[in-house]
Amino acid sequence: MNGAESLVRTLVNGGVDTCFTNPGTSEMQFVAAADRVPEMRCVLCLFEGVASGAADGYARMTGTPAATLLHLGVGLGNAISNFHNAFRANVPIVNIVGDHATWHRKHDAPLGSHIEAYARPISGWVRTVESALDMPEAAHAAIEASLGPPGQIATLITPADCTWDESDEPMTDPVLFRGFRSVDERIIEGAAAALRSGQPAALLMSNFALRTKGLDLASRIANKSGARVICDTFNPRLERGAGRAPIERMPYFAEQAIQSLAGIKHLIVVGTKAPVGFFAYPGLPSEIAPPDCKVHVLARVDENIIDALKRLAAAIGADKVAPTLQELKRPPLPAGELNPESVARSLAALMPEHSIISDEGVSAGLPLLPFTAGAPPHDWLFGTGGSVGQGLPVGTGAAVACPDRRVICLQADGSGMYTVQALWTQARESLNVTNVIYKNNAYRILAIEHERVGGGKPGPKATDLFALDNPDIDWIRLAGSMGVPARRAATAEEFSAALAWSLEEEGPTLVEAAIVQHDMSAA
Amino acid sequence: MNGAESLVRTLVNGGVDTCFTNPGTSEMQFVAAADRVPEMRCVLCLFEGVASGAADGYARMTGTPAATLLHLGVGLGNAISNFHNAFRANVPIVNIVGDHATWHRKHDAPLGSHIEAYARPISGWVRTVESALDMPEAAHAAIEASLGPPGQIATLITPADCTWDESDEPMTDPVLFRGFRSVDERIIEGAAAALRSGQPAALLMSNFALRTKGLDLASRIANKSGARVICDTFNPRLERGAGRAPIERMPYFAEQAIQSLAGIKHLIVVGTKAPVGFFAYPGLPSEIAPPDCKVHVLARVDENIIDALKRLAAAIGADKVAPTLQELKRPPLPAGELNPESVARSLAALMPEHSIISDEGVSAGLPLLPFTAGAPPHDWLFGTGGSVGQGLPVGTGAAVACPDRRVICLQADGSGMYTVQALWTQARESLNVTNVIYKNNAYRILAIEHERVGGGKPGPKATDLFALDNPDIDWIRLAGSMGVPARRAATAEEFSAALAWSLEEEGPTLVEAAIVQHDMSAA
Repeated sequence: MNGAESLVRTLVNGGVDTCFTNPGTSEMQFVAAADRVPEMRCVLCLFEGVASGAADGYARMTGTPAATLLHLGVGLGNAISNFHNAFRANVPIVNIVGDHATWHRKHDAPLGSHIEAYARPISGWVRTVESALDMPEAAHAAIEASLGPPGQIATLITPADCTWDESDEPMTDPVLFRGFRSVDERIIEGAAAALRSGQPAALLMSNFALRTKGLDLASRIANKSGARVICDTFNPRLERGAGRAPIERMPYFAEQAIQSLAGIKHLIVVGTKAPVGFFAYPGLPSEIAPPDCKVHVLARVDENIIDALKRLAAAIGADKVAPTLQELKRPPLPAGELNPESVARSLAALMPEHSIISDEGVSAGLPLLPFTAGAPPHDWLFGTGGSVGQGLPVGTGAAVACPDRRVICLQADGSGMYTVQALWTQARESLNVTNVIYKNNAYRILAIEHERVGGGKPGPKATDLFALDNPDIDWIRLAGSMGVPARRAATAEEFSAALAWSLEEEGPTLVEAAIVQHDMSAA
Repeated sequence: MNGAESLVRTLVNGGVDTCFTNPGTSEMQFVAAADRVPEMRCVLCLFEGVASGAADGYARMTGTPAATLLHLGVGLGNAISNFHNAFRANVPIVNIVGDHATWHRKHDAPLGSHIEAYARPISGWVRTVESALDMPEAAHAAIEASLGPPGQIATLITPADCTWDESDEPMTDPVLFRGFRSVDERIIEGAAAALRSGQPAALLMSNFALRTKGLDLASRIANKSGARVICDTFNPRLERGAGRAPIERMPYFAEQAIQSLAGIKHLIVVGTKAPVGFFAYPGLPSEIAPPDCKVHVLARVDENIIDALKRLAAAIGADKVAPTLQELKRPPLPAGELNPESVARSLAALMPEHSIISDEGVSAGLPLLPFTAGAPPHDWLFGTGGSVGQGLPVGTGAAVACPDRRVICLQADGSGMYTVQALWTQARESLNVTNVIYKNNAYRILAIEHERVGGGKPGPKATDLFALDNPDIDWIRLAGSMGVPARRAATAEEFSAALAWSLEEEGPTLVEAAIVQHDMSAA
């Protein structure tokens, strides 16, 4: 058995049976091996940024790693943006990158590059195999490394000769998960004392704290102590909707975020870090919490978040208190103008139970969370690392992970163009994805940021650089070119009809929502 | 004047007046400054891989750097693939990457990343500005660094506060070019002795040796000495066609390349390195030259190539010998089946004088060079670093550089999908680009490489991973969605008609060539 087959079989034995890939010559032995291992599903992506984003979406929904298979440093380069988001989402991914044969590397052939340099910033674990005999052990180690905790990208670099040379049998040992560290009792006590102090307090949560169980516990703690419960602006996955405990969201813009925490004396941080501005602005501090606010890190992302919340609840006697759960409350279908709010209302009225939302709505996305709060239970996936071009790929991977659920990608037009090739993979795999494109023909967020960083009102050149209407991008033809049926909507009624059509279709569809946007602050 | 304006003005003062960009919040002050500096042209790209490829194409045609303006580490990540190609092409680029404000970096905000780690492998020079006061000097140094020699990517990382803080006046000092090193006389003598030896010899050339003057000198040397003259498989720019000295091309596949040099005793390397296999294969050596062949490096890429060729010609008395120049010889228009050969014939029959060809034809591109040898004089731009998704962006940048010339992108379908957003920029800028898409619905090269690396005939899963027909990609709709008119051709006659139409149009157009491909070796 050669190195590639031992690699593929070790992956499958370790539960990694889905591979998002855009392979090249150096990865052909992996592809050949996959043909001999029926358990390995290979999902072809026309661009590596789709593969990395899809692996992220897959892991957010399954909690287990998919593999990515990429072509040398340049293929990894194309994947970096969405790996950056996955890195910030703390998800497990086994990232396999082919390389030139060990004996070919020194010759600096055209495709030679510093793969490890590209891999390190987004990986928690990097290893270059130097012999086919090391392949099974290295593959097994990569799976274990990917699980962390926290979940992380484990990059395994596989020179071509290590894939075609004779190797050992694949590993069959169980994959060991090191487990989340338990939080020291003194930390629980410190947070409990803060909550008992009577001073204004808030829990700031992300990651596993935002699953149903964590939200339930936090709500009990809030109801007992009077603390507010807030989630990060961008989270890997938020379970929400009817039957779940609702949560405030930290505003995106730094001054609004600072305002939202004004007066808070104790910030109890759960599965995230003390909040900082997404960007820096002249005259604004980086830190969002008030200077006199004490930050209590209850549980880091590598610690047992749910256990810590349970113990905190018990410590303040909140375990006997009922949580506040969201009632089912769908709004009526909207009428008239199609704008971010009417899109949100229509979505809330129509989205099926257990929908998975991949949200890259950017400036158009602001009304989404408030209006969909009372929708049936669903999962919300955010852009975690701020790198755009995530929405369609993450939705694609989530749909591969959850074929029985409806995925809805809420995608701004500008960011959607970065990784638009995801539509093709959705069609190839017949994934039940509803893609809603917010078409405002602009990088609208940049016009806002231009002023906020002190650039003043955008001049003609800046305005031109933020405009996507020259030429106008026709998303109906664009989707159709990749086998995805699409409809256009310019009124709220048209949008609801198109959304209803899309949600009933088998396979991917796209709705181009020609939205009107008024002043940002009104959104 | 703030740091951003001082940066932009220093760039313009140094001759860098074109910026291919996809900016974000961190780069808004640059955008605002560009509005105050009319000389700076900003070309918006919907994806950073288009920007980096366009800067490469621009520099190949002008010899001077364009700027790229990218958003943090993730924007740079998206640009890496085509920067890798530009790095291999030894072209100058001033690559400006925004970063968080210096005082914000330590907070590890979501978009924080190791920008320098991504930049170093593709840059010859990297500097992070730490104060707005350093901006003019750093910008000036970046321009000089980009010129080399050899030309290289100079990456200037600009934290946001260094763009909005008060800076100094822009620099107006002339940009100094260090100049190419002159080759030692003993090296000229060594090469001359080899040519006089009467043993079989060849010149292997790339970079500036492939401009008209270098080709002319090499042809004289060949005619005097009997040496063959060969270019690398992939070159930044080859001047060819009627009136220029023709040149052999090194075959792509290692065993054919090895065969082509069989019997050569002296390989005189000019503006490139001793040849190595593009990939490694089981049982094949990395080095292409025969073991008993002596390699003479006449001129490295940072040395004065033309001067070295002149002196070599003089040393062997070739300066009085006439070169062999290509006659104008267009083939008749082809008829019948549309295949790579008929595309090449049609192109040779119709391409205008001084066309610029951006060639990413991959498996369909093999017949292009032989059939277009006698076309009117033109420039040929190759994929230099082996990273796909270069063809459309490089053609886009070349068209920005040379508005009076016709650019023809010969683009395979699979690789074209990586950076298809280039079409939008072509339409936005009304560039005279003819995009020919070789539509074979496959990553055909991979099916070939699958066998060559020892994977045998592709099995069903591999075949599926190489197929682009599920769903079929409709390039007419795809181009139309981004404002590029397109026509489809399925016969040689239809292709010639569509090509003729495209070559007459103002602005970009696209021809989808539905080609039939027979056995690779016959191509």
